[in-house]
Amino acid sequence: MRILGIDPGTGILGFGVVDVEKSGKVKLVTAGVVKSPAHTPLDDRLLDIYDSLREVMEETKPDEVVIEKLFFAKNVTTAISVAHARGVAMLVAKQAGVKIAEYTPLQIKQTMTGYGRAEKKQVQEMVRVHLGLSEVPKPDDAADALAAAITHVMMGKLR
Amino acid sequence: MRILGIDPGTGILGFGVVDVEKSGKVKLVTAGVVKSPAHTPLDDRLLDIYDSLREVMEETKPDEVVIEKLFFAKNVTTAISVAHARGVAMLVAKQAGVKIAEYTPLQIKQTMTGYGRAEKKQVQEMVRVHLGLSEVPKPDDAADALAAAITHVMMGKLR
Repeated sequence: MRILGIDPGTGILGFGVVDVEKSGKVKLVTAGVVKSPAHTPLDDRLLDIYDSLREVMEETKPDEVVIEKLFFAKNVTTAISVAHARGVAMLVAKQAGVKIAEYTPLQIKQTMTGYGRAEKKQVQEMVRVHLGLSEVPKPDDAADALAAAITHVMMGKLR
Repeated sequence: MRILGIDPGTGILGFGVVDVEKSGKVKLVTAGVVKSPAHTPLDDRLLDIYDSLREVMEETKPDEVVIEKLFFAKNVTTAISVAHARGVAMLVAKQAGVKIAEYTPLQIKQTMTGYGRAEKKQVQEMVRVHLGLSEVPKPDDAADALAAAITHVMMGKLR
């Protein structure tokens, strides 16, 4: 079972792919980001996200895709911008006919650390532990995407 | 010169195509909506919007696309939902290599009626007048999309 996690964003979008072994062990397949320079027009960014995610999907062939849900009480402008990218990411998964799961940042923090108000660093440290790595995957957005994927694995086990 | 206007939305997305003649006269080519039943999952809606807009683009071959900008101070949840659809609409235009213009609801009202706080009905009535129609195009979302397209024509004239 292979899972692709996505941490949506327009300037930088994180992705992370993990394999779940029969033993329940989770292994890192690949992780990275789709990044564009500051002031890149939104339409260029969306096309880049679309093409890059299609490539990731074709190369890794995940069974399920997990996309972090948006939760912005503070900055509506940022939320709207990220939602453009999130719509494109969701489209790519749907076009591939892959099942899509969604978790809020709170659910991811809660599942990864047992504490909904955990710091980003604590979540990323748990990503490192779950994947048996010596260092936290970089950049942060890739680690966040892996956290979303691992959350889905852990939620699945609980069911 | 042919212009496709889009009024983005997830439950219902309006589109309207107009031709600008050399005289400056604007003529209706086609208008309609992409609509999905209540409670349709967002990924299904996005795929429907993508496929439907691709079809509209292929059939009408617009020279430019105009997409209404989002402005929601009140309802962040709605804004985030609409932005998913807007991202997909922008992607379709970009994939076709067509120039994209954006106007806020305020700009559209101002340009169509001369008054930024005009009622929706007044804007739609001006759509009817500009296109020389006997009735306002239906549904509202199609008329709003046409208003975006006509705004672009009028802004172009002003330049």
